[in-house]
Amino acid sequence: MVFLTRHEFFNAAHRLSNPHWTDAQNEAVFGKCANANWHGHNYELIVTVKGSVNTETGFLMDVKVLSQILQQEVCEPLDHKNLNLDVPFLNGILPSTENLCIAIWNRIEPHLPKGVQLHRVKLYETPRIYVEYFGPLLNN
Amino acid sequence: MVFLTRHEFFNAAHRLSNPHWTDAQNEAVFGKCANANWHGHNYELIVTVKGSVNTETGFLMDVKVLSQILQQEVCEPLDHKNLNLDVPFLNGILPSTENLCIAIWNRIEPHLPKGVQLHRVKLYETPRIYVEYFGPLLNN
Amino acid sequence: MVFLTRHEFFNAAHRLSNPHWTDAQNEAVFGKCANANWHGHNYELIVTVKGSVNTETGFLMDVKVLSQILQQEVCEPLDHKNLNLDVPFLNGILPSTENLCIAIWNRIEPHLPKGVQLHRVKLYETPRIYVEYFGPLLNN
Amino acid sequence: MVFLTRHEFFNAAHRLSNPHWTDAQNEAVFGKCANANWHGHNYELIVTVKGSVNTETGFLMDVKVLSQILQQEVCEPLDHKNLNLDVPFLNGILPSTENLCIAIWNRIEPHLPKGVQLHRVKLYETPRIYVEYFGPLLNN
Amino acid sequence: MVFLTRHEFFNAAHRLSNPHWTDAQNEAVFGKCANANWHGHNYELIVTVKGSVNTETGFLMDVKVLSQILQQEVCEPLDHKNLNLDVPFLNGILPSTENLCIAIWNRIEPHLPKGVQLHRVKLYETPRIYVEYFGPLLNN
Amino acid sequence: MVFLTRHEFFNAAHRLSNPHWTDAQNEAVFGKCANANWHGHNYELIVTVKGSVNTETGFLMDVKVLSQILQQEVCEPLDHKNLNLDVPFLNGILPSTENLCIAIWNRIEPHLPKGVQLHRVKLYETPRIYVEYFGPLLNN
Repeated sequence: MVFLTRHEFFNAAHRLSNPHWTDAQNEAVFGKCANANWHGHNYELIVTVKGSVNTETGFLMDVKVLSQILQQEVCEPLDHKNLNLDVPFLNGILPSTENLCIAIWNRIEPHLPKGVQLHRVKLYETPRIYVEYFGPLLNN
Repeated sequence: MVFLTRHEFFNAAHRLSNPHWTDAQNEAVFGKCANANWHGHNYELIVTVKGSVNTETGFLMDVKVLSQILQQEVCEPLDHKNLNLDVPFLNGILPSTENLCIAIWNRIEPHLPKGVQLHRVKLYETPRIYVEYFGPLLNN
Repeated sequence: MVFLTRHEFFNAAHRLSNPHWTDAQNEAVFGKCANANWHGHNYELIVTVKGSVNTETGFLMDVKVLSQILQQEVCEPLDHKNLNLDVPFLNGILPSTENLCIAIWNRIEPHLPKGVQLHRVKLYETPRIYVEYFGPLLNN
Repeated sequence: MVFLTRHEFFNAAHRLSNPHWTDAQNEAVFGKCANANWHGHNYELIVTVKGSVNTETGFLMDVKVLSQILQQEVCEPLDHKNLNLDVPFLNGILPSTENLCIAIWNRIEPHLPKGVQLHRVKLYETPRIYVEYFGPLLNN
Repeated sequence: MVFLTRHEFFNAAHRLSNPHWTDAQNEAVFGKCANANWHGHNYELIVTVKGSVNTETGFLMDVKVLSQILQQEVCEPLDHKNLNLDVPFLNGILPSTENLCIAIWNRIEPHLPKGVQLHRVKLYETPRIYVEYFGPLLNN
Repeated sequence: MVFLTRHEFFNAAHRLSNPHWTDAQNEAVFGKCANANWHGHNYELIVTVKGSVNTETGFLMDVKVLSQILQQEVCEPLDHKNLNLDVPFLNGILPSTENLCIAIWNRIEPHLPKGVQLHRVKLYETPRIYVEYFGPLLNN
């Protein structure tokens, strides 16, 4: 069992607000993150997969293939987009970093090659804040 | 003559589009940076001042004061804001990183203490792209 | 179950020496870290909490609240201090990075909101050395 | 139980190719990594050990000793070398990052002091790609 | 006058040796960098251009175009290559970081758009060593 | 003319206080940096030299020699030391980052090989604060 990790990047706008709340409630809970005209981030996405090493290639999986999956399933749909408005697979999801991580897990997981398991989705919102998700089976 | 530099950060949304152009022209020139629903960045602001060392303090200037100027004049007005819509001192300015750099220079320069000169405003838009401005007197 | 992490910083002086040992013993074990006149570090503190996502906010917990706890309980008491002399909660503790990590865990843990568990305290002493502590329950 | 980590570096040339395959097969699987005249990397090696804290020293182990083990067992034999040709302990091993990680684990593990366990070998091949190995006992 | 900078990356093998010298001379001058079987690096290339801001676009030049020039003229010919053997434009050049910087300047300079000047080629060989070249006109 | 740069590191304690001032004056000017029991930093030292490229070696100068000069003249005397008490060449100098930069310049400059000029001493006190000195001849 080895673990292979790839870093990717996307830049997006979002705002944090609960559509069932008043503006005052959103302002009270989310502060400047609720700004009606949006703000944005350079997100750094760090995805780890695990499995055994293929003895012929020395690879868990080809990291170029992992990168293509991340580009196609996550970076292309999210890069230079508004996460609240522009992304079908985020419809109805409040785009906190926590929820983004879970949505990205669900987006990537079906595309991994046979024998390779998704281990972790880690997402930096700023250089000082990140969230990690290890899938629905981890419940401490 | 020594040079003192301070790093600060702000996160903001923007889009690149020339209001005198059609959508098709903006799309042709700015590509995905013209997305009508905005995108955003974690900007890293790196400001350098220059001057002589005060023999009593060993300081060019107190870096905490420099940080307060940057916070008050740049980070507070720009952080978690939409650079096209929310910032009075960017009114009418297309918020490219080049134009932001120049606007930030103009915003900071009047607030520096006597005897301290602004040397450089450096602004990272992404970890791989930055712009520098050395003021209106530098013309190669 | 998701994991949320926040980076903070503090700068401090310390020395490594066992008060029950002679200077020669301390010098033999701790080398230049035993320097009688102290040395110091820019510590980077990286704290991870875990729990479930609040469906109304999309948050495990508000990262600003996590930051405030770290500032109040760790950074303010330690920043620009001497870890051997100036910090009541480190009294009698040899300030190795290992011991600092455990002391910081004990300092933070009682302040987390209900439903949020402390997962990891990670402390960089230099850019090439760090220690992690996952709490008293992890005994491998 | 605490965890102590040390970063080290080495720069090396390698190529990925299976000696039982034709050039065309190697090119098809490994692409430009199969270049017959080699390419190379600045590898960053990050090694974590675990155990309990010695109450007299405050150390899990002396990080200078850990660094010396890594230098002697890994960095000196690999730095400024060709990983396919120059390294006896890599003989017959296709030098993928996955295989390097496992070989480095096997190389370090016998040299750790009594009471200290090797926890993880993490190896960056580029700033955006890394592999981790937690030893032969981890089989998920 | 503003300055725009773009970071790119390539991974390559090389060795330092003067073909007019004996092996012993090369070993004496270049040490382990003369290893006959090559070694390699993750090079980070940082290129700065300068000029005035186009008032219609807010751009000095489109950074995507700058990136394409760097990819086409530098990264594609050098990435996953042997700098001593595989690169026509480095024929007969001892691939020290100094010489690489100058060769990269000469390679990029003719491709910049009208009105945009090449200002600096900066090349990291390791995270702790870099070389800069400001062109043939700078002679202090 | 090319420029060659090397990064080095040292960890030290210091305090900022003017010995001709009262404690209250020092506290008013230097704030927590005046803490009587010291504090400390991981300093990052970045030194740039300039000159022409030797056609036989491709080197401005051997970067290993530059590193040795920095180790011997700066890092060994300063690492794990108290900058106010332990360093003969800092006697009587208030160890602000500005004054350290100038003292380091004076310390390095006489040791460079013939034909190589010292261009810049850059010193990070924290990851967000640095000072640069270009020598006594630069007076803007």
